[in-house]
Amino acid sequence: MEKNNSKVIKADGYAWEGLQRREYKNEDRCYKGVHRYSLLGEKEDEQQLNFQTRYFEVEADGYTSFEYHRHPHSVIILRGHGSVILGNELYEISLHDVIYISPGTLHQFHADKGEPLGFICIVDRYRDRPTLPEQEDISDVIHSGEVLRKIKR
Amino acid sequence: MEKNNSKVIKADGYAWEGLQRREYKNEDRCYKGVHRYSLLGEKEDEQQLNFQTRYFEVEADGYTSFEYHRHPHSVIILRGHGSVILGNELYEISLHDVIYISPGTLHQFHADKGEPLGFICIVDRYRDRPTLPEQEDISDVIHSGEVLRKIKR
Repeated sequence: MEKNNSKVIKADGYAWEGLQRREYKNEDRCYKGVHRYSLLGEKEDEQQLNFQTRYFEVEADGYTSFEYHRHPHSVIILRGHGSVILGNELYEISLHDVIYISPGTLHQFHADKGEPLGFICIVDRYRDRPTLPEQEDISDVIHSGEVLRKIKR
Repeated sequence: MEKNNSKVIKADGYAWEGLQRREYKNEDRCYKGVHRYSLLGEKEDEQQLNFQTRYFEVEADGYTSFEYHRHPHSVIILRGHGSVILGNELYEISLHDVIYISPGTLHQFHADKGEPLGFICIVDRYRDRPTLPEQEDISDVIHSGEVLRKIKR
């Protein structure tokens, strides 16, 4: 059998021992009050995972950037309530809801229920970078007034 | 942009609308009181995910099979307390703890705290089948009396 690199990373609420809470993104994009923990798949001894498991937390009234990319997301809500734009649709989301974000779908998470919104998000290790849509891209896809009013850019 | 297959699967506690609770495994292996939901990555319209996101729940006093395989696991505890064998080590686990199970590591989850133990487990879509170890494999790896007493086969 192979070298055993297995481990347990202890949690304390919505924080993890030995893992640093980071800013959502390094670049300045249009988002508000978003933090993240890289849970598994980034460290040297975790390279046998082909995917990365991250935890994102959006502060009350915060939102992630409105973007799209080729790689899909698998998301599970771990904390609170909020909403998510998935293309032309707006969904209410709460604890343990599962969200599939398919390739190319414009999306944005909103912590719009007066509380933090936290979620696990799993992605391929090798993936394309997100793109911020042009007004044209948005007009092509989104016709719902409710969604158009919700978008933060 | 591409076809939008995105979706929200609503949760009700530790169950998900439209998803069936299944038995842990189809074969008769050595486990007790384990159920699973396939959350994302198995359905026809989810094939762009290279990984699968599953939820497992072990009833109080239950345990998963004691096994190993080439593919690693990324695990996050979603419900309760329990313990996990990772090779020669035994760890207590509780809500939001993150567990990395490296390739080839013998492992087994135990709901040994008088309550159900539930966890998200993410794996590659294409992966090898688990192997149940021979006594020889176990003797090679496990010297801890505590772990040896804990193993259920």
